[in-house]
Amino acid sequence: MGGVNRMAGIADKMASNQKQIAISEFFEKNKHFLGFDSLPRSIITAVKEAVDNSLDACEEARILPEIVVKITKIDTKKDILELQTEDNGPGIPQKSIEKVFGQLLFGSRFHAIRQSRGQQGIGITGVVMYSQLTTGKPTHVLSKISGEPTAVSVNIGLDTRKNKAVKSEQTRIIWEREDMSLKEHGVQVTTRMKAKYQRGRQSVFQYLRMTSIVNPHAEITFVDPDGERFHWPRVTERLPTKVDAIKPHPHGIELGQLQRMCRETSDSRISVFLRQNFSGVSMRAAKELCEAAELSVSTKPKSMKPDDVRALLEAFQGERTIGGKVIKLLSPPTNCLSPIEEMLIKKGLSKTIDSKFIATMTRAPTVSHGNPFQVEVGLIFGDGMSADKHVEVLRFANRVPLMYQQGGCLLTKAIESVDWRQYGLEQAGGKGVPKGPAAILVHLASTNVQFTSEAKEALSDNEFVFEETRKAMLEMGRGLRKHLEKKKKMAKTREKFELINDILPAIAAKSAAILERPVPDLAGSITKIMSAVICNETTTWNKETKQTDVSVTLFNYTTRARSYSLLVNWPEKSGAEIVENERGGRKEAMGIWGWKIETLEPGEQAVLEYSLSGLEKGDWTETEVFFRGSQDVIGATKLDEKMLVEIRRQEEVLTQSEETSVESETNSESSFEPGVVEGDSAQTTLFGGDV
Amino acid sequence: MGGVNRMAGIADKMASNQKQIAISEFFEKNKHFLGFDSLPRSIITAVKEAVDNSLDACEEARILPEIVVKITKIDTKKDILELQTEDNGPGIPQKSIEKVFGQLLFGSRFHAIRQSRGQQGIGITGVVMYSQLTTGKPTHVLSKISGEPTAVSVNIGLDTRKNKAVKSEQTRIIWEREDMSLKEHGVQVTTRMKAKYQRGRQSVFQYLRMTSIVNPHAEITFVDPDGERFHWPRVTERLPTKVDAIKPHPHGIELGQLQRMCRETSDSRISVFLRQNFSGVSMRAAKELCEAAELSVSTKPKSMKPDDVRALLEAFQGERTIGGKVIKLLSPPTNCLSPIEEMLIKKGLSKTIDSKFIATMTRAPTVSHGNPFQVEVGLIFGDGMSADKHVEVLRFANRVPLMYQQGGCLLTKAIESVDWRQYGLEQAGGKGVPKGPAAILVHLASTNVQFTSEAKEALSDNEFVFEETRKAMLEMGRGLRKHLEKKKKMAKTREKFELINDILPAIAAKSAAILERPVPDLAGSITKIMSAVICNETTTWNKETKQTDVSVTLFNYTTRARSYSLLVNWPEKSGAEIVENERGGRKEAMGIWGWKIETLEPGEQAVLEYSLSGLEKGDWTETEVFFRGSQDVIGATKLDEKMLVEIRRQEEVLTQSEETSVESETNSESSFEPGVVEGDSAQTTLFGGDV
Repeated sequence: MGGVNRMAGIADKMASNQKQIAISEFFEKNKHFLGFDSLPRSIITAVKEAVDNSLDACEEARILPEIVVKITKIDTKKDILELQTEDNGPGIPQKSIEKVFGQLLFGSRFHAIRQSRGQQGIGITGVVMYSQLTTGKPTHVLSKISGEPTAVSVNIGLDTRKNKAVKSEQTRIIWEREDMSLKEHGVQVTTRMKAKYQRGRQSVFQYLRMTSIVNPHAEITFVDPDGERFHWPRVTERLPTKVDAIKPHPHGIELGQLQRMCRETSDSRISVFLRQNFSGVSMRAAKELCEAAELSVSTKPKSMKPDDVRALLEAFQGERTIGGKVIKLLSPPTNCLSPIEEMLIKKGLSKTIDSKFIATMTRAPTVSHGNPFQVEVGLIFGDGMSADKHVEVLRFANRVPLMYQQGGCLLTKAIESVDWRQYGLEQAGGKGVPKGPAAILVHLASTNVQFTSEAKEALSDNEFVFEETRKAMLEMGRGLRKHLEKKKKMAKTREKFELINDILPAIAAKSAAILERPVPDLAGSITKIMSAVICNETTTWNKETKQTDVSVTLFNYTTRARSYSLLVNWPEKSGAEIVENERGGRKEAMGIWGWKIETLEPGEQAVLEYSLSGLEKGDWTETEVFFRGSQDVIGATKLDEKMLVEIRRQEEVLTQSEETSVESETNSESSFEPGVVEGDSAQTTLFGGDV
Repeated sequence: MGGVNRMAGIADKMASNQKQIAISEFFEKNKHFLGFDSLPRSIITAVKEAVDNSLDACEEARILPEIVVKITKIDTKKDILELQTEDNGPGIPQKSIEKVFGQLLFGSRFHAIRQSRGQQGIGITGVVMYSQLTTGKPTHVLSKISGEPTAVSVNIGLDTRKNKAVKSEQTRIIWEREDMSLKEHGVQVTTRMKAKYQRGRQSVFQYLRMTSIVNPHAEITFVDPDGERFHWPRVTERLPTKVDAIKPHPHGIELGQLQRMCRETSDSRISVFLRQNFSGVSMRAAKELCEAAELSVSTKPKSMKPDDVRALLEAFQGERTIGGKVIKLLSPPTNCLSPIEEMLIKKGLSKTIDSKFIATMTRAPTVSHGNPFQVEVGLIFGDGMSADKHVEVLRFANRVPLMYQQGGCLLTKAIESVDWRQYGLEQAGGKGVPKGPAAILVHLASTNVQFTSEAKEALSDNEFVFEETRKAMLEMGRGLRKHLEKKKKMAKTREKFELINDILPAIAAKSAAILERPVPDLAGSITKIMSAVICNETTTWNKETKQTDVSVTLFNYTTRARSYSLLVNWPEKSGAEIVENERGGRKEAMGIWGWKIETLEPGEQAVLEYSLSGLEKGDWTETEVFFRGSQDVIGATKLDEKMLVEIRRQEEVLTQSEETSVESETNSESSFEPGVVEGDSAQTTLFGGDV
């Protein structure tokens, strides 16, 4: 019995040692979960949290952000840095400051389904906590709200045992702002922490540079510890699309969640409950869901039995039907997403990376488990990048750069899954990050970005996001291959041209001189040698007219007269217009213009000239030329009529979806399987450009 | 002013939307942080949390664990699995069950500094939460404590809005246990969840298999959904070393922590406070710390000013000294760690992986930032593994297998940082996970394992752990290279032997027969051809005597008489004794025995024979032979006298540290720099073995 008593005693003793841990104690001990695992990373994490908050606040208040980040070395021996960030956001009301900065898991975005940078209510409080832990000092916050004459100045610390803010030295002051361009509202945060400032691929500089790529509407200034000033100017005045919070979609609901929603609602009828609390559920769908679940539409959600709730979920998931017919639900609206869009990615990339070829694409928004998401990618190829190193991967989620844990990130895995060798990049075994003078950008915009940890540096596995990203990569790859093939073809043609225009006449002249005979007419011979129709395109920025001038020349170096339709692409979606187009022609589809060239005699050439207005320098630097006709044209692509049809179809869809963007009760309902990825787009090929 | 008011309104509106989020809501939304990011992973996570708890409870109660895991398919179409785990642990008292299973961040190990599997108080509650979310069902717990006639039976759910358990159907029953070998106490957990059962590298089977490698004292049974039964028997009756919780060490303290400790203590004198609350602080050190910090020893900690606390921390960190002399502190005790130890790793590995060469090593415990930790590694090389694939990496932390996020894990990075080409493995560019027929095992035992997320699948960066792991890898690599070189050399010698013993005599006989002359004596010729001293060793298990028999033969195939000292290694640390050793000799160091062979004439051979008692079959399968002497011996290693000295020195340290394992006030204090890794060991070379 001694053993029995001892064992029972142990069980009791083990139990008595247990106690509740505050969330703040948890994260203080596990500060590496929040991105404070090394001194160099800690300062990047702190900058990231502060800048994310500023960008989110500005976006919500519809303000074009101006952000100043300043890092100062306080004690080099002890690795103490001071970080100061300042924004022109709406400011934080006095009474909210302590909770925003001094209490973990306090926030406004946790329950909202829409795209935002911060969601957890952890970020900036984590910074305050880390500062306090490593330097014993509180964080100073200055906040001014429009209309108030003074700003709040207050020191915020954290009682980690209780997860409560500790406020001190609160006062109101006149805020003399250094940068007078900043408006009459905003927040300044000043905090000291143990951290190390470093340069290189994982640095504050790189973080801000990448932030500016995906936030082209932001004006960002950085003063480094040496006092050097870096400035990333705004490249568009257009704020990101305003995102609205949406209600959860039935396809993304788990049973436990639905049980809770039923328990907590004050709606007295299930049909009302369904329409009011979910997106994608029309009045008709609500009725049908009830019917499939064998529930009366007047059932009170609060009094539903577990089996009723389960039946309802089964109707959501298409497991319960009406006579074998799955209940059709509308897709969730995608106005909760704010993609960056192709032209702006291109601008952002060309601003920070010098290179030759840029392709970008924004895929259509789609849905996984009821959560809308959208993938955007960019590929840069060419000079100024190392050819024998791994391609640089730039990862972003909801406009926030991801700088650590590249190997463990879903976006990287999608890149690695593509056989890049077929697209002209080196890759050992057709797997892994390819090698070559290129950089790949991936941006995931989503209402529910699933990171692997609170530090938000890598995305966890999701088959739908993976597939969308992979598809986007394949399309970009095809664009790259085309670019490389075209380059190769043009290089060959150029060689032939040189032969014909320089060498042959020289030989003829020389031979004639030696033989003392007249120089022969070479036109016939040249045509025979070339035996090709050649197209040459130039796209140049015209400083004086502020327009982009395009010239397309078609040479007929064959022995027969030729007839063609020539088509070009132009960025119509970005608002560019075709002007000074003397040869007329007509629009063939969104962003596609065409001309007929009736007869081009042997040895003749035809020139098409027009300009594009409404663009800025660097926006459009290469025009793609397509042709309809039997003989191949070097330097142009034979038009794929199916592609044209596809573009026209998409155009219609776009026009339609604009008309129906407000969730409507029309019969445009589409049946879509839970978790199935919808939508597809094929835009890349039309947007390759040399910058 | 309209704009001003609008902006102020926005700031207020944004603030009013903010609210506190419960930790359970947080983890319900971020269930992927806890390892529930995909259906196949969810069941592994659930098994992991349950088994970790069982192993921890048994270890704490000093019980040899018997664990049964059973997975049943409930609904294949909807992917619903039932998991049942059962242990013979001490059981959980009735009143504690709801908190252990139904409340997040509730636990006993969070504040304790010692090695344990669970620390956060999240794991099993996460499983209960995930089950409830995906199936709407509570988790059933059966718990019996020794001495009580009945077991508690109760259903536990979770109110995620409040982080409180929801208890139902609580009753007391007679627990008829299926497996009668389980004792009169234990816990059974039954839970249903949305999950997918899979086989392969990332599977429940693999998780349990790996768990059995690093927990050789555990008896684990697994019944898979097809009803197939797998059993991993216990290979040692020895429980892991009992670990004691230790106090924090001054070198691992941050300012914020010290401030809080001073504020919360009831000690009235700083000198007492320092001795009572920290490890490594002797009475003398406490006085000296006060002196360096310019504080009176009678200062009351509670009333210390911020600058006083800072001064004390600076004294901790050696930034404040007494006349330039840094205050010496004892290292923290390492009895808070429980390594697996070489022999057991070897046993565990050989139990589950068929292979030829196994090297293992346990490095000496060391300290990073005041936290004791210890690295253990194993390397298996040989048949049965694929030669053209990446080496299998088996990662463990505190005896728990890590199965996901391999690429993002510190342990993997340490393996990747080694140039394995020099050790005989293929590796592109000398970086990355090598290729070859091998598996590498790494185990980190630490009081403070820093994972990258709550799912505890990858270790975050820590330069000290990285360095220790890398060093261990380098040593293992050298062991592997030696093994491969020896194999090559022996193969050559064997060829020569064949030539001499078979072919030469045959030629001589043939020639003699043809010439009708007597067969010539070849001894002289053979000696000339071989011109070498050759050593041959065999180590075999003797079924009858239950001993390991070793035989070492030395052939002198040179033209001169030779004299040698021969030495062998044997697993003395594991309790083996040398018996039936007729030639005597003497112990030269821990685990090293030596004999003198005075004169060995040309053509002669000497044989050493002895047996090892106290071992089991498979424990010791290869003996390494060393020699002292001028002429090289093929098949033996020239003794590195420095190595012998090192082994002797370590032996002394070990003896000493056993004597002083209770923290003492003797003058054995060593000055060690904060954060500097101490200790080094070079045991691998002595423990290579063919299994």
